[in-house]
Amino acid sequence: MSALARIFPVFDWGRGYGRTALVNDLVAAVIVTIMLIPQSLAYAMLAGLPPEVGLYASILPIVAYALFGTSRALAVGPVAVVSLMTLSAAGTVAPPGSEEFIAAALVLALLSGLFLLLMGVLRLGFLANLLSHPVVSGFITASGIIIATSQLKSILGVSASGDALPELLRSLAANLGQTNLPTLIIGAAAIAFLFWVRKGLKPLLVGAGLAPRPADLVAKTGPIFAVAASTLAVVALGLEDQGVRVIGEIPQSLPPFTVPLFEAELWSRLAVPALLISIIGFVESVSVAQTLAARKRQRIRPDQELVGLGAANVAAAFSGGYPVTGGFARSVVNFDAGAETPAAGAFTAVGILVAALLLTPLLTSLPIATLAATIIVAVLSLVDLKKPLETWRYSRADFAAMMATILVTLLAGVEKGVIAGVGLSLALFLWRASRPHAAIVGRVPETEHFRNVKRHKVFTDPRILTIRIDESLTYLNARWLEEFVLEEVADHPELRHLILMCSAVNAIDASALESLEAINHRLADSSVKLHLSEVKGPVMDALEKSRFPEELTGKVWLSQNAAFDAIIAEAEREEEALRPADLWMARGLI
Amino acid sequence: MSALARIFPVFDWGRGYGRTALVNDLVAAVIVTIMLIPQSLAYAMLAGLPPEVGLYASILPIVAYALFGTSRALAVGPVAVVSLMTLSAAGTVAPPGSEEFIAAALVLALLSGLFLLLMGVLRLGFLANLLSHPVVSGFITASGIIIATSQLKSILGVSASGDALPELLRSLAANLGQTNLPTLIIGAAAIAFLFWVRKGLKPLLVGAGLAPRPADLVAKTGPIFAVAASTLAVVALGLEDQGVRVIGEIPQSLPPFTVPLFEAELWSRLAVPALLISIIGFVESVSVAQTLAARKRQRIRPDQELVGLGAANVAAAFSGGYPVTGGFARSVVNFDAGAETPAAGAFTAVGILVAALLLTPLLTSLPIATLAATIIVAVLSLVDLKKPLETWRYSRADFAAMMATILVTLLAGVEKGVIAGVGLSLALFLWRASRPHAAIVGRVPETEHFRNVKRHKVFTDPRILTIRIDESLTYLNARWLEEFVLEEVADHPELRHLILMCSAVNAIDASALESLEAINHRLADSSVKLHLSEVKGPVMDALEKSRFPEELTGKVWLSQNAAFDAIIAEAEREEEALRPADLWMARGLI
Repeated sequence: MSALARIFPVFDWGRGYGRTALVNDLVAAVIVTIMLIPQSLAYAMLAGLPPEVGLYASILPIVAYALFGTSRALAVGPVAVVSLMTLSAAGTVAPPGSEEFIAAALVLALLSGLFLLLMGVLRLGFLANLLSHPVVSGFITASGIIIATSQLKSILGVSASGDALPELLRSLAANLGQTNLPTLIIGAAAIAFLFWVRKGLKPLLVGAGLAPRPADLVAKTGPIFAVAASTLAVVALGLEDQGVRVIGEIPQSLPPFTVPLFEAELWSRLAVPALLISIIGFVESVSVAQTLAARKRQRIRPDQELVGLGAANVAAAFSGGYPVTGGFARSVVNFDAGAETPAAGAFTAVGILVAALLLTPLLTSLPIATLAATIIVAVLSLVDLKKPLETWRYSRADFAAMMATILVTLLAGVEKGVIAGVGLSLALFLWRASRPHAAIVGRVPETEHFRNVKRHKVFTDPRILTIRIDESLTYLNARWLEEFVLEEVADHPELRHLILMCSAVNAIDASALESLEAINHRLADSSVKLHLSEVKGPVMDALEKSRFPEELTGKVWLSQNAAFDAIIAEAEREEEALRPADLWMARGLI
Repeated sequence: MSALARIFPVFDWGRGYGRTALVNDLVAAVIVTIMLIPQSLAYAMLAGLPPEVGLYASILPIVAYALFGTSRALAVGPVAVVSLMTLSAAGTVAPPGSEEFIAAALVLALLSGLFLLLMGVLRLGFLANLLSHPVVSGFITASGIIIATSQLKSILGVSASGDALPELLRSLAANLGQTNLPTLIIGAAAIAFLFWVRKGLKPLLVGAGLAPRPADLVAKTGPIFAVAASTLAVVALGLEDQGVRVIGEIPQSLPPFTVPLFEAELWSRLAVPALLISIIGFVESVSVAQTLAARKRQRIRPDQELVGLGAANVAAAFSGGYPVTGGFARSVVNFDAGAETPAAGAFTAVGILVAALLLTPLLTSLPIATLAATIIVAVLSLVDLKKPLETWRYSRADFAAMMATILVTLLAGVEKGVIAGVGLSLALFLWRASRPHAAIVGRVPETEHFRNVKRHKVFTDPRILTIRIDESLTYLNARWLEEFVLEEVADHPELRHLILMCSAVNAIDASALESLEAINHRLADSSVKLHLSEVKGPVMDALEKSRFPEELTGKVWLSQNAAFDAIIAEAEREEEALRPADLWMARGLI
């Protein structure tokens, strides 16, 4: 791959671009555009922004990603969780919908774009690893619950606010009396229709003779019918006068050229939320991109994905948008509709652009309740209540991290939820890494195998102790190693030789090396020799750069079996060599 | 061990306490007391506190540690590095020596005592693991350089301030012109004498017929001679009038009962420094205690050590002291002088108490330059310039963490130095953990062994790929695993079976399990079966609690060799079963 194509993957896929790919990409773009129009409006509304911002965030960012991204099917734009995070972060600066709020959303897009670009250039994609799967899953589930709850206000036609569950529920409950019946009917009907489209429409279409894949794609365009029908109902029945809120006038324009504010204080307040938005967005996007790439045995380059998503967010910041990332639903539709290259994304951008210029007058009377319904139906599929159960069964530590993330997200909001989950995962990981598994082993009679003395009947010798360490030795467990070994030695008064069996030790860092040196010296003080066995090649290569092999009172053995035989023989020679008087002397000295 | 003896180890060693132990402990206490008097005064001065505070910090804290601590030889009290950290932390609140500064030192002692007790009760001693050996070593070396430099002002008789090197050097250079010659002579002579005592006195005493160990102990009391001689010189020659600064009147009193200030703002400003002081103090103290315990095949319990050191610091806070910990030099002297139990510490406390009550008038004319000389000679032994070289040779990552700690400590002060070192160690660890070693392996001809294809001539089959993963699978490397496996699959178009050889996998967490599930599904999409081989018992036990073994498209094999044979046979059966027409169909579908 040329250097140019590494940075602009468009030079890679663009060379072979032909008529078939063009047709496939165009078809996919039409379907995705139909799906994206209501979704973009809805997510902008969820983020507390004017609906047109959602359209703008679906135009230039897609083009920027098409230039720099490596996934051929990823569709970039507003997504539910990032919209909620935007609402939460910009909401700390100004009330949703205000000029300052919109400006803060632009700064968030710019900052998260810059963070992503920086991580991409510095190859820091591995930082996303700090989000474990249970933490991400818990976060998405909790976010889905918050988002669905927050949209209930639009279904009921009441006002409510808050970015954590208790606040939201309190303000919903307080305003429940003001429920607007026509709004509730539209909202409930839209929810019922959209659920039916999800579950019931596809079998119906298949029954009517359509192939499963097109049937699926038609079902995905369901929201546009809900939009059309409810808009018509509002116009025909004059429901606006009965208190049904509609989205109103949307400016018919190209995405505006916007310059995010350069205010030090605003930037520093939004830096942490922007970082969290970038990382959550990146994690979600990469996992979607990988899933789709694998289906065609294609590859994505995660570090280049950071650049692609970074460019998309910077583009959003300068074209009146807000933070974007690769969305799951839209990418799957794009893929299933046959998109072959990122050009499909560019054509989608043109589609949305046309909509922003020409179709917006048709949307003036679109009820907000319909958009809320599309959001609720979309995010409820994010809520996965089986996952916590499965995780509980598999690993209590992971379950704890997941539940902490869910509870803190629900009760204290999205940012604190992510931070709590990451912190707890890391603490649990470090705790486990600091006390690895180790076993005292002995020889299984008449074999060359050494097994745990607690689980097997094995042969041991009171003068020799073999400890098998089932983990790499690093600074996190170096102190544990010293404590564990010295306690075992204190428990075995007749001990003369200690063997550390290193068959599972993949690395020894400088701290662990010092601990081994300290163990060696301390054992020497009490006349016990230290040996290593089954040391792996790369570990031995590293050890030979230190003085440890020379200083070692015992030896480094390739095989545990050979070590055990040779040391028994040595211990016996030593005992024979000691006359009784010497034995007393030796004991006196110890 | 009884529950009472677990909390108060005194009930453990106290029961067998007899005449021999008493005599040995008394002798050790006398020697340690002689060594501690100048040291306590000097370290208090280093910390920016009145000299008597050093004596107070050597009385009740020792008794508290004797009650709760588990080391039989550890001597607790003021130490150089913690004194510097106290100066740096309390210096952010008030100028050294002021009332507020002394009050801040008490708060630091209380807070670090509480942190230590909390960590002890919650069994959080593993947090100290976050300080890797290179970071601690770099920190101590840099602290030693800062301390020695800071004491030059007292040797020259000028004023200088700052807790980082550039500031210190600037202010020393600015005041160099005001050097006081008599002070410089006393200081230089004391330094020369103390170095000679360290290196030259012991051989001389041994030459004169003394046994090596007593000779060593006499040499350790050297500072008291420097104190006596320089005090006499000041009195005899009237040097005070010539500008030689002396420590002056020290109140003759019992340690005062002090109550640390309970001010929320002060506490929150001192919380982080106090935490760092506790952790650095704990790490140093435990390593000394372990070294000494190992020599007699005794044990210490690190979590109980936290309680012992916590109690000592709380005692310091209520008796006019400042943060204390187990000191290396004094503990070794205590051990070498024959101390058998913590009672030696209690007797030392009585000795210092007597000194505080009766001897302080003798110290009025003690020149501060002499104390500075004892500090310089003591801390220069902490500076280890060979260590960075050794670390460079062994591990570049550890070297980077060490140098970052040294440079940030020297240039920005102790707190930032520790934080930078811990942060960089952790980042490097996570980075390495996120991209473990893995190798594509093949069978060594005519054996059952599988080795890296890059290093050995081995047999492979284009339809089968075996990847050996040399690390536990956790959330830190789960994403790497997906990328690595999917890239390899994309590189091998003929592939039908992928085997993950898990001989070095000690654990699989929930994130890694999900990644394995994702890999399984993605490979199924491209008609590749996933197998595992050489799965360890505990890992298999865990996997069986999940649905993964059922969902796996391939099998879990105990032995890699058996897997390889069986899969080759299966692949051949599959190929034979496909007639040419099917083959074309299959290719069309992929």
